[in-house]
Order: sequence, then structure tokens, then C-alpha cells
Amino acid sequence: MMKKEEIEEWFKSLQENICKAIEKTDGQGKFEEDLWKREGGGGGRTRVLRNGAIIEKGGVNFSAVHGETPERILQALKLSKSNFFATGVSIVMHPQSPMVPIIHMNVRYFEMDNGKYWFGGGIDLTPHYIDKVDAQYFHQQLKAVCDKHHPDYYSKFKKWADDYFFIKHRNETRGIGGIFFDHLVESEKINKEECFAFVQDVGRLFAPIYTHLMAKNNTLPFGEEEKKWQFLRRGRYAEFNLVWDKGTKFGLDTNGRTESILMSLPPQANWEYNFVPQPNSKEAKTLELLKKGINWIQEVEG
Amino acid sequence: MMKKEEIEEWFKSLQENICKAIEKTDGQGKFEEDLWKREGGGGGRTRVLRNGAIIEKGGVNFSAVHGETPERILQALKLSKSNFFATGVSIVMHPQSPMVPIIHMNVRYFEMDNGKYWFGGGIDLTPHYIDKVDAQYFHQQLKAVCDKHHPDYYSKFKKWADDYFFIKHRNETRGIGGIFFDHLVESEKINKEECFAFVQDVGRLFAPIYTHLMAKNNTLPFGEEEKKWQFLRRGRYAEFNLVWDKGTKFGLDTNGRTESILMSLPPQANWEYNFVPQPNSKEAKTLELLKKGINWIQEVEG
Repeated sequence: MMKKEEIEEWFKSLQENICKAIEKTDGQGKFEEDLWKREGGGGGRTRVLRNGAIIEKGGVNFSAVHGETPERILQALKLSKSNFFATGVSIVMHPQSPMVPIIHMNVRYFEMDNGKYWFGGGIDLTPHYIDKVDAQYFHQQLKAVCDKHHPDYYSKFKKWADDYFFIKHRNETRGIGGIFFDHLVESEKINKEECFAFVQDVGRLFAPIYTHLMAKNNTLPFGEEEKKWQFLRRGRYAEFNLVWDKGTKFGLDTNGRTESILMSLPPQANWEYNFVPQPNSKEAKTLELLKKGINWIQEVEG
Repeated sequence: MMKKEEIEEWFKSLQENICKAIEKTDGQGKFEEDLWKREGGGGGRTRVLRNGAIIEKGGVNFSAVHGETPERILQALKLSKSNFFATGVSIVMHPQSPMVPIIHMNVRYFEMDNGKYWFGGGIDLTPHYIDKVDAQYFHQQLKAVCDKHHPDYYSKFKKWADDYFFIKHRNETRGIGGIFFDHLVESEKINKEECFAFVQDVGRLFAPIYTHLMAKNNTLPFGEEEKKWQFLRRGRYAEFNLVWDKGTKFGLDTNGRTESILMSLPPQANWEYNFVPQPNSKEAKTLELLKKGINWIQEVEG
């Protein structure tokens, strides 16, 4: 039987490998590290890169915490008092250039004293300007990893991401989605090792995907207009994270380490009352694509 | 018996008077107006001033909406299906200069078919740098209006503001507080007319207080350091409004007009990972004062 320490160690090495890959592609920025302890048990290793050549602000968090299960979770699961263990890696990257997309990834494992456990995670991409070729590439990579593990995973987890990364009060998706999954456990068809193997494959996907998108887009030209749009889109990103993101809410509600949770917020975000892009502009075209249910893999041919 | 139309009309005139006073003191900025209708009934008049000489972004919203009472409210009050009417004025001002404080005011009236009604409201001040003389002045003005109506109002509503305008995940108050009250109804001691008279006096207080603080502080010198701090404090303002503010949450959840609700967000906000001001700096001194329970009226003498 797989031990939680094994999963924890693997997540820690994932953080390490991703930070190395990002630093290498960025060429200038270096991650700074903060080790922190949680009062109730466990702690984490937060790494933040600031003012890189490509990444303006990027965070790669590892944590492994334990203690009494928060009341909220016990209520949701209708369980009595018990201890929990949770470990995971969370990433958000805000690039300097509006031509490079924002990316987010999370992989996590949760287990309780009573033997209950689950895996969760996801990757989603938030381009300031949607490039259909990049969107196709991104979803193809995710689909390939999903297909390796289960024929239903991609369609199921892609829909889940569309529904999850949705800014309800704006009636917009946050970006072009990706995959999102939660409560992944063994069943008749897969065992725990296979669940973990899928989560590992998702985690391994992050560095090659994002370093490709960094390198490919960072040399594209942009000006004031594009920067202005980037700041407005980052405002939407902040709105999603602060209003709708369950992980953020849970962290802030349960007295998590605020600076690690909110490292996801952009270095600068702007809000302009009632901003509407010019018809047929690049900005308007991106807005039109911030919808659920788009088949990004077919979109390019269409 | 006072009619809801009377209250609505008064709130509308309050919006008008406040906009005029702000424009006069700003000397440059003009409010632009958006009229909007609510699908379920009623609508509003949103006024936004952008790029004034003193105000960078300020919103003064009037609305009067009606329709089926949202499920949430019915549940909270344990009431069966009924219609509601709600009217109010909401204001947030983000100044250009970090030496001028951010201010917020809300006055509102809610009534239901079954005759149930209440008034609510409040004013609170968020200086980027706390000036104790201004803080004393602000609280003295509020106390004078409270004392005119009830000897307990100031201490009760001041505490309520301390508790309400609190950024739990930062363990900081949003600013120096002010007054906050809700569910104000007639009792043995006061009738409905007197409740409304108090709300009117609170509303009338806004323009003289804020135009005084605008004029007094706008000529103070500042530089890059102060601008940087202003953007970070605006980040906290956005955090409060998006994570904790009940009015914002309610509006976004019940499909309110997003652009009117989120006009409260700053034109630009920054987030810097783990920013800690230099010991004994002006910034550190302000942070030390972002606490509940400070007696601002006595603080200056102390």
C-alpha cells in the first residue's frame, strides 16, 4: 500500500523540478524560498520568483499539513472528528508580456484517519490574447495524458474545468480552461497506485507545456494597448480567485498561510468601469472565446 | 406613514447633492451617468467620475429595485415567498494622491410585502497613511450625528464598523472604521420617521466630511514610495470587498449589475509577495493602527 510520505516526497520533488525548468527558460529570475510551519501541524515550502525576464511574478507552493480535520470538511462529508493529512503543489505564473499566458496548476492528496483519501488537481491556461494554435496544443497535451489513463478522463475533466474556472458574475470563463478533477479514488477499474500515476503525469506535464509557451510567445511584440488589456484581465483573475476559487476560500477560512495562498494574485491589476473593447479588436475576439464548451482541439481546423 | 417612494426620492436627491459637492471640490472631474434596469424589477443610476484632479475613480450609485425576495433572504429570515423593495446609495472614492484617504458610504432601505422593513448604512474611512487629527475629526463628526439621535448609537455602530470592516485573513482592519448599522427599525423609543431621520443625517454627513479631507490632504507632497504603498493598500481594499463584503457577495450572488457593484474596486492595485514595511516607517506606523477598538477621538490627546 502506498504511503502518504511517498506522495509527499514526490510532490516535493515535483516542486523542485518545476522551479528548475522555469528558471532555466526564464534565464534571469530565481525562486526565493520561504519555509513555514502550520500551527495545527505540518507546514510548507513557498517559492516565489519576482521580476524575471519572462515571469513577472510566479509562485510554486509545496505544502504537507496535518491535524484535526476542519469542521467544514467533516460537515460536508458527514463524518465525526478525525485527523487529516493533506499535501500538494500549487502554481500560478504571471508573465511580464501580455503575449504569454497566465498558467495555474494544482495537484493534491488528502487523507483521513479513517482511511478515506482522494486525489485532486488540474491545469488551466489564461491567455490575455487567445492564440488558437496554442490552445489546441495545450488541450492536446492534456488529452494525451488523460487518454493514457482512462478514455473518459479528458472529456470529463475538461468539462469540469470549464465549469470550475468560470467567473459567474462576468459570465466569462477565466481562460481557455484545461482539466480539473477532485475526489479521485480507486474503483473497480483503477487502484490507488493508478490514481497517483495519473496525478504524477499531470504534474510532469506542467514544465514542458509552460516552458514551450513562454519561449514561443515571449518574443512577440506588444505595446501600451496590450499592457492595458493585460492589467484588466489580471483584474478578472483576481476576481475569480478571491470570489469563486474554492481552494482560496478554504485556505482563508481555515486560517491558512495568507501570503502563500494569495501568491496567486497578480503583481498589478487594473479595474476600469464598464470597459468594452472595440468591436472586432483582438480584445473583443478573445472575449468572444471566453465561453464554456469550446472544443479547442478541433477549433483550429474550424 | 412614510412611503417607500419618499425614501427613494430622498436617496436620489442625496446622490445628486453628493456628486455636485465632489465635482466642485475636485474642480476637474465630472460624473458620467449610466441608467440601468434590473430584469426582475426596478433599476438604478450609476455615476462614475474618472481621472479627476483629486479623485482617480469614484462611484456614486443610486438604485431602487423590487421583485421576488431572493431565496437567501427568505431563508435567513425564515419567511415564505414575498416581494421586496430595496433602495439605497453606495459610494466609494479612490483618490489620486496616497495622502487623501479612500472613503465608503452606504445608506439603504429594505421593505417586504408583509410590512417588514429596515434601514441600514454606514461610513468608513481608509487612509493609506493614518493621520490622527483626521481620524479624530472623522469620528467626532460621526459621533455628533449619532449622539443627536441616540446616546448608544456611536459606541454601538462604531464597534459594528470595527467588526465589519475587518480583513480576517490579514488580521487587519480595512482602515480606521467609522459607523455601520443594519436592521434599524422602530422600537418603543423611536419611530420609523426617526430611523429615517438618522439615516438622512448620516447621508448628509458624507459631502462635508470628504470634501474637507480632499481639500486638506491633496496638496501634501508624496513620491514613489507613497504611490507604491497606496497600490498595495488598494490591494487590501480589493481583498476585503471581494472576499468579505456582504453587500458585494449578495450582489454578485443574486445577479446584480456587476459593473455597478464592482465600481468599488480600485483603478490599480498591486500585490507584492510578503511585503513588510521597514520598522518605524510611516507605513509600519499605519499598519500598527489597523486594529479594532481604537478610540480615535481620544487617540490624538494620547
